[in-house]
Amino acid sequence: MPKAPAFKSKSSRSKSEKGRVPVNGLTYAGAGVNLEEKDRFTESLDSIMRRTHGPRVLSNPGGFAGLFRLDFNERLFKRNYKDPVLVACTDGCGTKVKLASQMKKFDTIGIDLVAMNVNDLIVQGGEPLLFLDYIAVSKVESSMLTDIVRGVAEGCKRAGCALIGGETAEMPDVYASGDFDLAGFAVGVVELKRAMNPLRVQPGDVVLGLESDGIHSNGYTLVRNVVDKAGLDLNRVYPELQQSRAAQAAGRRSRAKSRGPSSAQTLGEVLLTPTRIYADPIVRLQRTYTVKNIISGMAHITGSGMVGNLERALHKGVDARIDTGSWEPMPVFRFLQEHGRIEEAEMRRVFNMGIGYTLLVRPAFAESVAERLSRLGERVYRIGEVVKGTGRVIETGPGLGR
Amino acid sequence: MPKAPAFKSKSSRSKSEKGRVPVNGLTYAGAGVNLEEKDRFTESLDSIMRRTHGPRVLSNPGGFAGLFRLDFNERLFKRNYKDPVLVACTDGCGTKVKLASQMKKFDTIGIDLVAMNVNDLIVQGGEPLLFLDYIAVSKVESSMLTDIVRGVAEGCKRAGCALIGGETAEMPDVYASGDFDLAGFAVGVVELKRAMNPLRVQPGDVVLGLESDGIHSNGYTLVRNVVDKAGLDLNRVYPELQQSRAAQAAGRRSRAKSRGPSSAQTLGEVLLTPTRIYADPIVRLQRTYTVKNIISGMAHITGSGMVGNLERALHKGVDARIDTGSWEPMPVFRFLQEHGRIEEAEMRRVFNMGIGYTLLVRPAFAESVAERLSRLGERVYRIGEVVKGTGRVIETGPGLGR
Repeated sequence: MPKAPAFKSKSSRSKSEKGRVPVNGLTYAGAGVNLEEKDRFTESLDSIMRRTHGPRVLSNPGGFAGLFRLDFNERLFKRNYKDPVLVACTDGCGTKVKLASQMKKFDTIGIDLVAMNVNDLIVQGGEPLLFLDYIAVSKVESSMLTDIVRGVAEGCKRAGCALIGGETAEMPDVYASGDFDLAGFAVGVVELKRAMNPLRVQPGDVVLGLESDGIHSNGYTLVRNVVDKAGLDLNRVYPELQQSRAAQAAGRRSRAKSRGPSSAQTLGEVLLTPTRIYADPIVRLQRTYTVKNIISGMAHITGSGMVGNLERALHKGVDARIDTGSWEPMPVFRFLQEHGRIEEAEMRRVFNMGIGYTLLVRPAFAESVAERLSRLGERVYRIGEVVKGTGRVIETGPGLGR
Repeated sequence: MPKAPAFKSKSSRSKSEKGRVPVNGLTYAGAGVNLEEKDRFTESLDSIMRRTHGPRVLSNPGGFAGLFRLDFNERLFKRNYKDPVLVACTDGCGTKVKLASQMKKFDTIGIDLVAMNVNDLIVQGGEPLLFLDYIAVSKVESSMLTDIVRGVAEGCKRAGCALIGGETAEMPDVYASGDFDLAGFAVGVVELKRAMNPLRVQPGDVVLGLESDGIHSNGYTLVRNVVDKAGLDLNRVYPELQQSRAAQAAGRRSRAKSRGPSSAQTLGEVLLTPTRIYADPIVRLQRTYTVKNIISGMAHITGSGMVGNLERALHKGVDARIDTGSWEPMPVFRFLQEHGRIEEAEMRRVFNMGIGYTLLVRPAFAESVAERLSRLGERVYRIGEVVKGTGRVIETGPGLGR
């Protein structure tokens, strides 16, 4: 990891996507989200942010989280951090909050909030320490807010971090009745030498994918657009969602805790399934391999999909080749794709398509890492490999026209 | 500072107010904010949060910020932190964002955001290290967002902390066109032994008040209600606001940097004056007195006023007596009070009334502390004293009926 104070990345401010391909049917842009404009101003924002950076801010190319070095040199922490770096990040749940409002179900959106933050944080190689939430509502309703915070607390427990504060803002003039928004903040710590560094990635590294728990927290403007335009009923039980879901559930080992009930779920319930939190298995995994750097990179697959997120873990001398046929997205993705007449490439740009987290692993250890993650409750797929290249992620598979 | 892991405070989640007195004219509750209900659920939220707390979370009675101890024992940091504690907090700007939307002026609301967070953070005795922001908008507009982040960066510079990340969420279905919301997140560090502790407060301690820069970022639902109901024009220059303002400006020393221009300001401009950031003078002050604990407590005066905020710095054996006649609120407060027919007690419950930050100081050092703060650019008032009591803040003065 470079120690220069310069803040080289233009990506830590927002998640965006470049080089979009025009498509037919519904698109993310058509659903109201203009990623290009967001990209443009992101660059100007970074230069503004950079002016506030002192020498303790570390450059963090490709990361969503900010790294702030506590400039000490002594041994500390129970686990002997020599050169601990604070990792801090913030994120929300996008318009999944709107779906929660529509469904009047508020007890899991807080899990999404924690997930969106800590999954970004652990990508840096760190472990989450603490979390705070900001909840803005039209009107304070105890039961709704209690449900939200309960979800946040549940998420923190799953992530192994402490929820040490939060703020609730009542803003009747900004939020329509029943509407709300959430923002989360996570702080973690990482040993300086063990922080992820794209330069570590080598041709031959294996790409492992950890299964997601569904849509997670990205693309909901498009999801809701599909639901509206196709006249879908959030309160209806669609058999095509259940059937394979149940089959999938049967095939899992020890993932019950973070899974919904196996009984029939309405479309709304399926869509509200909380984002999977990968902190516990990833932190445990890294404690297993304390000497060698077995893991050369990680990515949390959020908005802009595998390509937009895994790219951040690469340097300019390698590509990651992903075979999208190596796993099967869960039924909800195909369901939305069909009802929205969304092209495969657009689906993969907007959604995680069944893989919520990826690891780049040295080939000799790929099998043992996969086994260990399986024992920790993850469903792991070998989905691709690193080759010489130019810093791109290349997806090949059915429907992608390659 | 107690080292027990228990989280005793019910106040770190939200700022609220108790024991409200019924009043005539406009009230905060009448303007759409129900503080009582907020109070009730705050208690239930704390118990939920507590379940996520490990032994490294420190109890933080009366504080808005969460304290998380890095459990190391060696010397570190340039300034020799022996037992550094991370301080983290989150806050927004309330419905001041709505006023910014109405005025289409977005370059100072980010200063408010930083101020609301770091002023809470320094109350713990800490110094701010880093900051992140969350911006949610209806539609991404580069110029608006650039202005907002520019304000955040300016605030961070004033506060001496690094803006190391942020998130922009585009949510067209949650925010009406032109509307937006902001949440901020600050992390700081404090030496464990020097963290503020209400038990340190003694009868005889002097209460010093630092002047505010106007309304700051609280009470804007009421402010906007007054503007609407009294038919005030945000774009009009009201002489009664200017006159004394100019006089005040003339009387100040070295506060030009954070003040608006002395030329005539519209009502909207006066109301958008950013929240004063007290971090720099307070951090410097604390570095001056490194041996003795001269300062026994501090409070950031936000929503619920002097009473609701200074109370958090007291223990149950003392009262703070505040003479509200010892300083003159700036004209904007009287202007709103008259046009809204708001009772004095209600004004003091909702607004800072001209004092944005208070310090409890050992009497022998009150004069030197005040002088030092004046040299650092603050206008300092001696506004009261600590007496034996029951943990209350008692305001006496004109219009308060005592």
